[in-house]
Amino acid sequence: MIYVLNGPNLGRLGTREPSVYGHTTYPDLEKLCLETAERLGVRVEVRQTDAEFEMIRWLHQAADEGADVVLNPAGWSHYNIAVRDAAAQLGGRLVEVHISNIHTREEFRHHSVISAVATGVVAGLGVDGYRLALEHLARFAG
Amino acid sequence: MIYVLNGPNLGRLGTREPSVYGHTTYPDLEKLCLETAERLGVRVEVRQTDAEFEMIRWLHQAADEGADVVLNPAGWSHYNIAVRDAAAQLGGRLVEVHISNIHTREEFRHHSVISAVATGVVAGLGVDGYRLALEHLARFAG
Amino acid sequence: MIYVLNGPNLGRLGTREPSVYGHTTYPDLEKLCLETAERLGVRVEVRQTDAEFEMIRWLHQAADEGADVVLNPAGWSHYNIAVRDAAAQLGGRLVEVHISNIHTREEFRHHSVISAVATGVVAGLGVDGYRLALEHLARFAG
Amino acid sequence: MIYVLNGPNLGRLGTREPSVYGHTTYPDLEKLCLETAERLGVRVEVRQTDAEFEMIRWLHQAADEGADVVLNPAGWSHYNIAVRDAAAQLGGRLVEVHISNIHTREEFRHHSVISAVATGVVAGLGVDGYRLALEHLARFAG
Amino acid sequence: MIYVLNGPNLGRLGTREPSVYGHTTYPDLEKLCLETAERLGVRVEVRQTDAEFEMIRWLHQAADEGADVVLNPAGWSHYNIAVRDAAAQLGGRLVEVHISNIHTREEFRHHSVISAVATGVVAGLGVDGYRLALEHLARFAG
Amino acid sequence: MIYVLNGPNLGRLGTREPSVYGHTTYPDLEKLCLETAERLGVRVEVRQTDAEFEMIRWLHQAADEGADVVLNPAGWSHYNIAVRDAAAQLGGRLVEVHISNIHTREEFRHHSVISAVATGVVAGLGVDGYRLALEHLARFAG
Amino acid sequence: MIYVLNGPNLGRLGTREPSVYGHTTYPDLEKLCLETAERLGVRVEVRQTDAEFEMIRWLHQAADEGADVVLNPAGWSHYNIAVRDAAAQLGGRLVEVHISNIHTREEFRHHSVISAVATGVVAGLGVDGYRLALEHLARFAG
Amino acid sequence: MIYVLNGPNLGRLGTREPSVYGHTTYPDLEKLCLETAERLGVRVEVRQTDAEFEMIRWLHQAADEGADVVLNPAGWSHYNIAVRDAAAQLGGRLVEVHISNIHTREEFRHHSVISAVATGVVAGLGVDGYRLALEHLARFAG
Amino acid sequence: MIYVLNGPNLGRLGTREPSVYGHTTYPDLEKLCLETAERLGVRVEVRQTDAEFEMIRWLHQAADEGADVVLNPAGWSHYNIAVRDAAAQLGGRLVEVHISNIHTREEFRHHSVISAVATGVVAGLGVDGYRLALEHLARFAG
Amino acid sequence: MIYVLNGPNLGRLGTREPSVYGHTTYPDLEKLCLETAERLGVRVEVRQTDAEFEMIRWLHQAADEGADVVLNPAGWSHYNIAVRDAAAQLGGRLVEVHISNIHTREEFRHHSVISAVATGVVAGLGVDGYRLALEHLARFAG
Amino acid sequence: MIYVLNGPNLGRLGTREPSVYGHTTYPDLEKLCLETAERLGVRVEVRQTDAEFEMIRWLHQAADEGADVVLNPAGWSHYNIAVRDAAAQLGGRLVEVHISNIHTREEFRHHSVISAVATGVVAGLGVDGYRLALEHLARFAG
Amino acid sequence: MIYVLNGPNLGRLGTREPSVYGHTTYPDLEKLCLETAERLGVRVEVRQTDAEFEMIRWLHQAADEGADVVLNPAGWSHYNIAVRDAAAQLGGRLVEVHISNIHTREEFRHHSVISAVATGVVAGLGVDGYRLALEHLARFAG
Repeated sequence: MIYVLNGPNLGRLGTREPSVYGHTTYPDLEKLCLETAERLGVRVEVRQTDAEFEMIRWLHQAADEGADVVLNPAGWSHYNIAVRDAAAQLGGRLVEVHISNIHTREEFRHHSVISAVATGVVAGLGVDGYRLALEHLARFAG
Repeated sequence: MIYVLNGPNLGRLGTREPSVYGHTTYPDLEKLCLETAERLGVRVEVRQTDAEFEMIRWLHQAADEGADVVLNPAGWSHYNIAVRDAAAQLGGRLVEVHISNIHTREEFRHHSVISAVATGVVAGLGVDGYRLALEHLARFAG
Repeated sequence: MIYVLNGPNLGRLGTREPSVYGHTTYPDLEKLCLETAERLGVRVEVRQTDAEFEMIRWLHQAADEGADVVLNPAGWSHYNIAVRDAAAQLGGRLVEVHISNIHTREEFRHHSVISAVATGVVAGLGVDGYRLALEHLARFAG
Repeated sequence: MIYVLNGPNLGRLGTREPSVYGHTTYPDLEKLCLETAERLGVRVEVRQTDAEFEMIRWLHQAADEGADVVLNPAGWSHYNIAVRDAAAQLGGRLVEVHISNIHTREEFRHHSVISAVATGVVAGLGVDGYRLALEHLARFAG
Repeated sequence: MIYVLNGPNLGRLGTREPSVYGHTTYPDLEKLCLETAERLGVRVEVRQTDAEFEMIRWLHQAADEGADVVLNPAGWSHYNIAVRDAAAQLGGRLVEVHISNIHTREEFRHHSVISAVATGVVAGLGVDGYRLALEHLARFAG
Repeated sequence: MIYVLNGPNLGRLGTREPSVYGHTTYPDLEKLCLETAERLGVRVEVRQTDAEFEMIRWLHQAADEGADVVLNPAGWSHYNIAVRDAAAQLGGRLVEVHISNIHTREEFRHHSVISAVATGVVAGLGVDGYRLALEHLARFAG
Repeated sequence: MIYVLNGPNLGRLGTREPSVYGHTTYPDLEKLCLETAERLGVRVEVRQTDAEFEMIRWLHQAADEGADVVLNPAGWSHYNIAVRDAAAQLGGRLVEVHISNIHTREEFRHHSVISAVATGVVAGLGVDGYRLALEHLARFAG
Repeated sequence: MIYVLNGPNLGRLGTREPSVYGHTTYPDLEKLCLETAERLGVRVEVRQTDAEFEMIRWLHQAADEGADVVLNPAGWSHYNIAVRDAAAQLGGRLVEVHISNIHTREEFRHHSVISAVATGVVAGLGVDGYRLALEHLARFAG
Repeated sequence: MIYVLNGPNLGRLGTREPSVYGHTTYPDLEKLCLETAERLGVRVEVRQTDAEFEMIRWLHQAADEGADVVLNPAGWSHYNIAVRDAAAQLGGRLVEVHISNIHTREEFRHHSVISAVATGVVAGLGVDGYRLALEHLARFAG
Repeated sequence: MIYVLNGPNLGRLGTREPSVYGHTTYPDLEKLCLETAERLGVRVEVRQTDAEFEMIRWLHQAADEGADVVLNPAGWSHYNIAVRDAAAQLGGRLVEVHISNIHTREEFRHHSVISAVATGVVAGLGVDGYRLALEHLARFAG
Repeated sequence: MIYVLNGPNLGRLGTREPSVYGHTTYPDLEKLCLETAERLGVRVEVRQTDAEFEMIRWLHQAADEGADVVLNPAGWSHYNIAVRDAAAQLGGRLVEVHISNIHTREEFRHHSVISAVATGVVAGLGVDGYRLALEHLARFAG
Repeated sequence: MIYVLNGPNLGRLGTREPSVYGHTTYPDLEKLCLETAERLGVRVEVRQTDAEFEMIRWLHQAADEGADVVLNPAGWSHYNIAVRDAAAQLGGRLVEVHISNIHTREEFRHHSVISAVATGVVAGLGVDGYRLALEHLARFAG
């Protein structure tokens, strides 16, 4: 099982600042992940929440199952150490995904407190970043 | 519709550090906003939450309706980028209100990560700041 | 008496970078303040200067009379401690007004050395900020 | 009544990074606190949450009752000003506890925004820090 | 045509600090890129240099051809503005690749001066990052 | 018309620290500018003031006339945002001139707050910098 | 044996700024430590010095004996790396104690260069912090 | 001749924040300087201005006469490089005087840009600092 | 002889980001310099390189000949201390030229490590900056 | 009684870097203080030490006697918080004296950690600073 | 084999700023190294380059041979991470040599990015530093 | 005479953190220095102290004799300006020695306040650094 976990405001994808995040909606994103997973022969579970405690609970669950995680921490990326601490407990791999290139945006978005506990980072490649993250995890899982 | 959204600990107004925030209670504040709205002929909805995800949901709702917002982000002002990202989606105007003058308090309160996505800021004028914010929004709405 | 004191370059309002400061001219601003004052039943005196020593003299005068002050320190906001020291002598209240939202402009405009000696701050609400400041002072004066 | 309040990820004690936090589980920790309280003749209530709003509600409750609090803010320690603002309302004493020595870990863990509103801090003494905090509060309460 | 351009020391892949960069050698990397390209039906050119002027010349060439580029700037990432300026001239897309997760290494490796002129970044996924970058460019090219 | 505007202490040229500023006096400087202008067939007006408000008034005048300006802000260069704001209103071009090389002097002189609103900067070429600035403006004006 | 070592100015306890440090005198503190030790069945040696070299010598002695140490470094906490280097040689445990809560005092007192070589830290619990430190060391020693 | 030059707001001495600056009025200060001078057998000229250009003119005059100067730059101390540049031209000695101890006040008052071009500094000794400065200059002049 | 030395990417002038650098091509620039030199009766040698070692070699050559240099260090300006060290050996004068106004671009371009070893700096005046630099050097050479 | 306390290296006055500290020897300094005291009708005790603990002891003694102190902390000024803590215990006044103008020397000498607990500071007036400090204390003592 | 590798501008030794680097020429330096090596019974190879890629190639060669290296990175010391990365691959020891004392020169020369991957550093002892480095390597090699 | 002066904790060499400082004891170090001196035909005096005032006294003594000094300031290196001031008085040469490579240890050890007054620095070459320092001083003395 691979968890694809999305943080605050991502449920609004396609609506929120399309010039930054593109026109793909959140249901499109879910579909993209599920189709990619099917093609790769892995199971994925795609979730989104605006509640920190829910994200922490999901990360605990993934840790308990030893599952791999694709995480888009959104606005939490830049300060949320509670989420980082939960992510640090994962036994599986963690690929952090950002839809936009955070390095070309506001100064405070250039640094993610999550990255130091991630296996790797994919940023700025749009929602295709999710597909690449899943490909990477699937290939090295099988 | 104008939303008046209050962040963490503001439900304790009048009880919490009265030397800083004054003796007006949160129900007083609600009443002040409703009476001001009535006088100005606009509709307001006054809410308070200690839960980040709830605040984000309300901001999404206001964004969907194109409503104006008066926001007192309280302690979140200084670090909560998830709330900022939600606020940045508003199509209507956003007036950030602080009851106390944050510039005369601790260093870490001098900067608000919300201000850069607000239309304007009112700080240090006590609960009267809410009235002024509503007056400003009402006058330019009508 | 309430003094409405305006710092350097504000005499050019309406001419100077209208995309930032709007199309209201300085005479319009004076008129707005005088009409607001008349409606509120208070007396105001509206002044503008590009000379630091003149602003300091006016603040001394207001201090001697125990008057309230609405101050737009303009470019001085960010470094002029001599003006701050004069403002700190006021016995009445001081509302600092900025026409534009200083938090969305250049980094060096995000901090005002005046704010720590002000009662409160109104920023980003255009020239309507003057009206709000006067309303606040008038209501609590009467 | 003394509240022992635990922040995010602490429910995973014993599972999470045992090389840092030791092998004591969260139920062990609860038991340790209850037994210590019984021995000292005081009543304690031990709670854990990953939800910021729940922690804020508990702190409000303790403030209303004038109770003392032992608080382990975990990952929130380093940025959560909303929790700090709730903690600042306590009329009773507040002892901040960290199981590990935060000063020997990552740079961002060296500073806690809670400490400035605490009565005192105990760090690095393992779960025994809870016992010491309770001993201190009990002795000066009785 | 997609250029895969590798900066200083990468010719030593497999030899240099295998605990950080893995056991894949530079010829393996070339082969991986060529096979991926063949599978995707695109043409790639894989190059490596320790000479800044040569890298700049290659980027100029890619800019002239409007080609996409996969760039691993290696040690230059953190200061080389001359390479950045050359990269900024590209009309095609630029995917920056790092084999290791630069965010878990020395402080000075956390920031790349190239990222702000890249389309996106892939880091920490080993040499598989090259494959993912090529997949992304190929998919959106075709 | 081109205005050549000189800030504080420049009236003392030739007297003040000749090892830094050379032996040319202020009247020499005026003459140099007038002769250069005559040769180039443009009109110049050369002025000097130690009063901030006077400099602001001159910049307002130049803005009203759409004139180009050669500005030596002297000691104001490093902090005076009120002068910067006035300079930012110019519709014509602005060449900032420094007689000495500010980059080889005290740390606080390395940065000028004026430069970001200037068309260009000439520094360290002595009073000849005025001639070059005039040549540049005249050539592109005619 | 447990050494309780006190740094500069602590011999003046009870006399020095009682609003910060309380009314307990240094002899009271010694007595408190000795009685606590007796109750716990451990031996303690309580010392105080204003001389850096004497503190270093005592730490060397404790290192030679493999003894545990309770250390209140007082003013040295914030800069004295020679004392830190001596403390780093201890084979036993080191509990750093501060009588006042250093996090609520001047900025330069918020950081202790000793903490990174300590087992743990107790701050802000008054002289009771010594008792708690001894309890912790005794319990885990026996 | 010794010039005693006072910067902005000092004309309000005795009125302005007496808890900081004491009850001596500006006329008292003038008298104190004149009597001290008479006793020491030197001539002094005591002046005050809120206008930067006037202060610069006086410093130029003192430079032309080779006179010594006692300077209280008040609020200008912390940023006014134009005044510093004028002061740097003095051939005589310059004693900078501050009535209050600037090191116990706000952070931004701890540093004076004037001090590096002064012969010496006297701070925190009240208006007696003027007497001491004059004594020093008189003794070494005679 | 005057050397006009151009650093990395400048061979692409006219092609590279014309909105920043204008439409003049590198051959145009060479021609401009040669014609200016001919008019002024001096000899110039115009060169461009993307290779640091070549630039260093040219600066050594100029140092050996005691020649003056016009240097546009381009992207090297902001970090290349090796080029700075070579430039510091010049016995002749050094005028640093930047085509664009580096003070209005990215933060990291505001500072040049070369400026402190230059005689002077011309920035933001387009390719006309080269002409002005040559005029200055020629006039004071003859 | 007024204590004149001198810190490390001051016993070498007259020998140590005379270009900075002048040719007055330490015995000359003692004599100057004693003669000044006799003229003023006060008793002084002049001491020097290179040992921190001795200085702390002397400050404790002065604190016990409620005596005024003239303190030249020399090299300790810039880091020694243990001496600061001892000085903060004084009930009498404290005048900090520096022979040289610390503001014109190395960066690290510009700030003194002692100044914030001093009544006032005299710097840069040579050994005459001691005389002035004694005059000030004597005048306000009698 | 010990490689003695010299970075940019060092070929100009004796010519370049003799007040900083002394009168020894680069051929003298080569001779000194060769004679020292002969005396010590080791083989050395002395090289100098202004080209980064050449230095990187030499370091790769030394890494392949397991040789010790004496490296003077000159201007590259302060920013060149590509050279650092090459140096980090050495299996042998690395002694970094600076002819001048970099700690007494400009601020930006105080830090070397190479030092953290060196075995040790010798600075400020002139060209004799090369002899000492060779002595150290030879003694511990044999 | 050459003084070899060792600061705090160095008397514990061989005992203290052997993984950092090696197994050579302090007596071994003394012997190494004496034998080296004998071989070189110079006289040395090797001393160690944990007392700041003693180190200062020894440096004064060396200054009086015009002797050269090899100084290992140990923990004092990073903050002790009183020792720096004493070292600055030396007329002879000063070689600062560190046994370990301070650049690969904690951040606060990367900078030494002593280095700016030293002739040169040797770091990271173990106790052999003392031998090299003596060789350098002897060679240039004879």
